[in-house]
Amino acid sequence: MLGEDLIPYCTIPAVMESVANNETDFGVVPIENSIEGPVGITLDSLAHKFELKIFKEIIIPINQNLIVNPGCKMEDIEDVYSHEQAIAQCREFIHKNKLQPHYAVSTANAAKSIVGDKSKAAIGNAKVVELYDLEILEANIQDTDNNATRFVVLSNNDHEITGKDKTSIIFSIYEDRPGGLYNILGIFQKNNINLTKIESRPSRKGLGKYLFFVDFNGHKDDDLIQDIINEIDENTYFLKVLGSYPEY
Amino acid sequence: MLGEDLIPYCTIPAVMESVANNETDFGVVPIENSIEGPVGITLDSLAHKFELKIFKEIIIPINQNLIVNPGCKMEDIEDVYSHEQAIAQCREFIHKNKLQPHYAVSTANAAKSIVGDKSKAAIGNAKVVELYDLEILEANIQDTDNNATRFVVLSNNDHEITGKDKTSIIFSIYEDRPGGLYNILGIFQKNNINLTKIESRPSRKGLGKYLFFVDFNGHKDDDLIQDIINEIDENTYFLKVLGSYPEY
Repeated sequence: MLGEDLIPYCTIPAVMESVANNETDFGVVPIENSIEGPVGITLDSLAHKFELKIFKEIIIPINQNLIVNPGCKMEDIEDVYSHEQAIAQCREFIHKNKLQPHYAVSTANAAKSIVGDKSKAAIGNAKVVELYDLEILEANIQDTDNNATRFVVLSNNDHEITGKDKTSIIFSIYEDRPGGLYNILGIFQKNNINLTKIESRPSRKGLGKYLFFVDFNGHKDDDLIQDIINEIDENTYFLKVLGSYPEY
Repeated sequence: MLGEDLIPYCTIPAVMESVANNETDFGVVPIENSIEGPVGITLDSLAHKFELKIFKEIIIPINQNLIVNPGCKMEDIEDVYSHEQAIAQCREFIHKNKLQPHYAVSTANAAKSIVGDKSKAAIGNAKVVELYDLEILEANIQDTDNNATRFVVLSNNDHEITGKDKTSIIFSIYEDRPGGLYNILGIFQKNNINLTKIESRPSRKGLGKYLFFVDFNGHKDDDLIQDIINEIDENTYFLKVLGSYPEY
């Protein structure tokens, strides 16, 4: 079951590959953040590389902290290190305090790199503080308080019907048919199905050509949802159903 | 005029600020890449921070190269350094050659950091090679050949009508009205106006709440386009016209 044996992987595609190869039963990857938006590598890998299903979704609030060496004060700090996404989530704080941002591969790496140097700070969650004997100088430094990340649990099969489900699909529309996206949204509209997400991603075929990632209420094993998926399939160039799973 | 005096700025918001403050007449910033998608900081800054207009668009093909110290061979290389976006554009090459990716603040910085170490390579364009006496081991290593970046030239005023123009807008829809995006797309549809881009971005108000960035054919000083903009304004919670400019 989920959570019994946890295996860390270095990258998001490595997590996905472990599930595809049956090395692991489930893989947990971030899919979108409320400030920074879609996690490109996750969406692109789901679209182009793996035939995995979304089994579950999890939403976790994110708090970023300014992490420093013990006794260090704000006026000591010149440089701040973190993963690009964490840096991006704290842009206003960094700008206001005139800090010079630097990118690290991960927030854990960033924390490690500042040990012993009072002119340097890291941005990350509270866990890395204990790991390297650092301290939090300022908590919750992210630009907005609505900072949450949505993760998906991937598996080789999706989830059975629970009665309160969501379905995720990816599609691309015919370039030569005007109103392509409008017509697809109309299929949901006429069936009174609520979209909970719509994201566009470049299709990698050139500027202005998109894949659309859409989440909506309902399970693909429900007859109405099945009819909707069939109608979308008839009117799109490409359709991939990422699965149905309980709403978080 | 554009191109007479060029001033480099460290960050995208700094470019925008220089235009807003009248330190510069025009600012050139990347807005989307055909592989990696939207440039979040550009879209967010245009939406939330600055009242700038798009005066022009420029599309530039991007070629990424594997840059090494003179005489270095593929089997010598263990680590590869570049800006996160360039690393992302060359994911398959990096994976195939079993290289360990590292993020740098810029591609120029990455090139500088590998000088003298044969186990390290950088990814970047041909210009940095001359700068640091390096050489290109393999050219065009990006994942797809359709790698192009669209830049916008920002100013305090947009461009006059040329007859072949585009207009960029940002809007958010009422959360409590079903089919919000569908209804807005319907305004374009009934007027036979072609959308050249649709991107969603998190509105920073929580997961599932979006701003939409839409580009379409036509100039805002044209009567039909003005009517369309007015109708969108009446049906959206927030609308910002980023300007009209000649199609590239």
